Amino acid sequence: MDHEVAARESAAPAAPGHFDAEADVVVVGGGGGGLPAALFSRWLGNEVILLEKAPELGGTARKAAFWYWVPNNEPMRALGIEDREEDCLRYMARLSRPHQYDPDSPTLGLSAWEYELCRAIYQSASPATELLAERGALPYRHCAGVPDYWAELPEDKAPTGRVLVPLDASETMSDGGRVGLQTMGDAAARDGVQVRTGHRVQRMIVADGAVVGVEATTADGATHRVRARKAVIFATGGFTHNQELRQHFLNVPVYGGCAALTNEGDFVAMASSVGAQLRNMNYAWMCPVPLEKAVARDPDLSGMFSVAGDSMLFVDKRGLRVVNEKLPYNELAQTFFRWDPATGSYPYLVLVQVWDQRAQDHSASDEYGRLIVPPGTDDAHVIRGDDLPALAAAVGERLAGYAGVTGGLRLADDFLPNLEATIARFNELAAAGRDTDFGRGDRAVEQLFNGDVREEPGRANPTMWPLAGTGPYYAALVTGGTLDTKGGPKATPDGQVLDDQDRPIPGLYGVGNCVASASAQAYWAGGATLGPILALAHRAATAADAERVAQPQPVSS
Amino acid sequence: MDHEVAARESAAPAAPGHFDAEADVVVVGGGGGGLPAALFSRWLGNEVILLEKAPELGGTARKAAFWYWVPNNEPMRALGIEDREEDCLRYMARLSRPHQYDPDSPTLGLSAWEYELCRAIYQSASPATELLAERGALPYRHCAGVPDYWAELPEDKAPTGRVLVPLDASETMSDGGRVGLQTMGDAAARDGVQVRTGHRVQRMIVADGAVVGVEATTADGATHRVRARKAVIFATGGFTHNQELRQHFLNVPVYGGCAALTNEGDFVAMASSVGAQLRNMNYAWMCPVPLEKAVARDPDLSGMFSVAGDSMLFVDKRGLRVVNEKLPYNELAQTFFRWDPATGSYPYLVLVQVWDQRAQDHSASDEYGRLIVPPGTDDAHVIRGDDLPALAAAVGERLAGYAGVTGGLRLADDFLPNLEATIARFNELAAAGRDTDFGRGDRAVEQLFNGDVREEPGRANPTMWPLAGTGPYYAALVTGGTLDTKGGPKATPDGQVLDDQDRPIPGLYGVGNCVASASAQAYWAGGATLGPILALAHRAATAADAERVAQPQPVSS
Repeated sequence: MDHEVAARESAAPAAPGHFDAEADVVVVGGGGGGLPAALFSRWLGNEVILLEKAPELGGTARKAAFWYWVPNNEPMRALGIEDREEDCLRYMARLSRPHQYDPDSPTLGLSAWEYELCRAIYQSASPATELLAERGALPYRHCAGVPDYWAELPEDKAPTGRVLVPLDASETMSDGGRVGLQTMGDAAARDGVQVRTGHRVQRMIVADGAVVGVEATTADGATHRVRARKAVIFATGGFTHNQELRQHFLNVPVYGGCAALTNEGDFVAMASSVGAQLRNMNYAWMCPVPLEKAVARDPDLSGMFSVAGDSMLFVDKRGLRVVNEKLPYNELAQTFFRWDPATGSYPYLVLVQVWDQRAQDHSASDEYGRLIVPPGTDDAHVIRGDDLPALAAAVGERLAGYAGVTGGLRLADDFLPNLEATIARFNELAAAGRDTDFGRGDRAVEQLFNGDVREEPGRANPTMWPLAGTGPYYAALVTGGTLDTKGGPKATPDGQVLDDQDRPIPGLYGVGNCVASASAQAYWAGGATLGPILALAHRAATAADAERVAQPQPVSS
Repeated sequence: MDHEVAARESAAPAAPGHFDAEADVVVVGGGGGGLPAALFSRWLGNEVILLEKAPELGGTARKAAFWYWVPNNEPMRALGIEDREEDCLRYMARLSRPHQYDPDSPTLGLSAWEYELCRAIYQSASPATELLAERGALPYRHCAGVPDYWAELPEDKAPTGRVLVPLDASETMSDGGRVGLQTMGDAAARDGVQVRTGHRVQRMIVADGAVVGVEATTADGATHRVRARKAVIFATGGFTHNQELRQHFLNVPVYGGCAALTNEGDFVAMASSVGAQLRNMNYAWMCPVPLEKAVARDPDLSGMFSVAGDSMLFVDKRGLRVVNEKLPYNELAQTFFRWDPATGSYPYLVLVQVWDQRAQDHSASDEYGRLIVPPGTDDAHVIRGDDLPALAAAVGERLAGYAGVTGGLRLADDFLPNLEATIARFNELAAAGRDTDFGRGDRAVEQLFNGDVREEPGRANPTMWPLAGTGPYYAALVTGGTLDTKGGPKATPDGQVLDDQDRPIPGLYGVGNCVASASAQAYWAGGATLGPILALAHRAATAADAERVAQPQPVSS
């Protein structure tokens, strides 16, 4: 972490005693989970102190497009689009635990806990987002045409219409996070949430088995003890930027990801130390990312939500095409981590995106993490060659520079001839408009994220076009990363963190990527991160509000 | 768990007070980690109480072949086979973290903690096993010809010779676990280790941040509090039989596995509740397993260490061959969990092993989890057909019966014609003696586990032979499972369990599959489970012996 944030200390809980401040509800984290939790708590009449580790509010959500997936939302209802609870749960269960999905099971093959969490998301997402809109904290507009990421599944009975976006986001919606965090932050200031940035919560304060406050430190070394009369709600994000946790929990060996750099899994240690159980620690919200920025831990790293361009393809170190480049990002990101049991290696750990001048001219954009960027923007990741041999040589050199962090991954000796053959084959498929090798462009979501391409009237498949026979050509190195992780303590649908006997730990709540997600391995749709978080933040705030007020303690501030 | 074992209770630590018994060292678990830890502790002059949850000693190791991988072992040295520390560490690092392996890094790309654990294994495995042999607790013989599972890697400078096996194991060595547990158990009785079976440790007893004992319950409901003057050493195995932990930690969605049924991850909750950090929770020792016994949680379930037979192949639900059937078991097991990002499913979750009468006649065995079993043994998993259409129909029916636990996996409509074409292709490759599709038989380890096959003088590839043109044919359903999991609290090379600041928790030690393994994702060789466990048990016992003796407490028994 940067020097503006206090270093991590022991997470072992502290005892009560002197407090520097107190409130009814203490919220830890000021991003896409914490700000709404604070607002909901405040609107219920509570005094609320919000502690944010970074020098400013925003967290990961500020970097996001801030789509939010809200089943059976108000605009859907107004439009007469049916989205019944039982249908929506089927869709969620089918994708969260695909190998366990059982349409005949009362919980659809999910555990009872996961099933109830999914129900809570369905039931509370729309009320929560309506309340945020009504209070002016998060006015939205409806993305009626945006499909779910698995819209073609028979279990998806409402394949479009579940996505909302902050009202004043741009036409492309890529700035939704900035807009949404601005409106929520303004509402917090307006309505009297006490925001304290630069406060890293280090541990909980526990009395008689109940969490009664937290101890934070600031970058200048001061300790700040805050008492919570009712509850502490953690919303501190995942562990994307904690290498040790990533290695020892995630199901794939990612380099890192796009979360705010403050997302170091602080809650994992703190919650464990008061007897919480960790769950869903193996899964993350995944996305392709440019290798170089991921390795450099660039704070502006964006996931490649949209692999734009038609005359563009991915090849592996052998120069072979191995994947449908337009798969939804969470699925595309799995490709990089395919294990080869014969060689004991991850042969696709880095893939090479290759494009031509046509794609450069017509598909460049600096939004949504695209690698084909316009002139004048940061293009350090772009590798150029006047022809394919020159490009191959430059790619080989760039990749070799990362051998120390890729297990020695290098281009194969026959990369160039294979690349030429791969382009010839791709061009055939593109000319025919049908990718019989990998199915590129077959699904609605693939068209959604195709980005701008040169108009070619009448073509069947706008995701493909033959690469030019002459250069210049361009390339970039791609791997898989997280948007953020999905694991943390097990919490009830009301956000109550549970002990190893599934009993709530009094006074302790969690919301967002710092607690275990019911989505397990699924990425249901764009906004499947933030929609459920808003729903569960509302429920947690409501439950925390109902907690018995603890006995007063002496306070000085 | 069965009715002979107490139900799980809260893992929250208890305070000192009355104790029913005391010893210098309390060992929890009486399997392949606990028994040697108890013996080593006893031989250092300590009073030792060993608490075992099951009605008898043995744990998972008793079910195993009990190969143990001992780098630079005494017989190697006697034979002049060089196995230098730096070479061995390279081999271990290359496989544990393949994507991070860096031959130029001082820790070879491993974390400092993992590197030191690997060094400890190298340095202590041979002394530990020599001591066990000298004391008659585990006499062994050397398997000079057995190769490592990645013997062909350039990093493997001692590709054969690292495996030992209990002296009196049979020629096939499959009964090594029974033999090794017998000799160790006899030594424990002879040398005065106080063994108490049927005692499930529920929680630790903690005073001033130090672990000073444990609280166990018996099946009849009695509580038994045992004080440890020096230390408690946990050796309770992994979490193979805890579905919730499997789902929420492992990197692949296995049904279960071959560990003792008592391996439910009890230490995960207990250690977390005293501030330990969980590590390597994503990986397991993997093996193919027969689907039906895995789903049924058959206590006698064995991993398919050896997929025997030459006129035998695996096909997927489409009837297509998708993998080299002779891959080492840990690698073969990964195949079942390949995610298909286009369909949102695990298409290979269940594969079908198919064989003919030749393989039935010449490759049948009931050892090492083979599915081609001799007449008169349990063959409930075997599906028969007089010809391929009959076999395909029977397989389809059997598989459909498991649709509720496989995400609805069923045979494709064109399974039969594909199967016929697959067999024709396989037969071509077998006749040529070269599997240009999947490389079957290319590696030493694949020949090692080929099992008995009919002699065919002069053939180049004993792992393949054409399937007969006429029936009868046989089949069985296969999926991937664990031998046991590899994750748990982070411990030092001396077995000291660490808190979230990497400080040892006084009095608390862990050994074996209940603590985090340095092997990460690797299965270095046969016996890479038990060899390192013996090494680390020796180190933990030595470190525990040196712990300051705690102040006496009143004891009644």
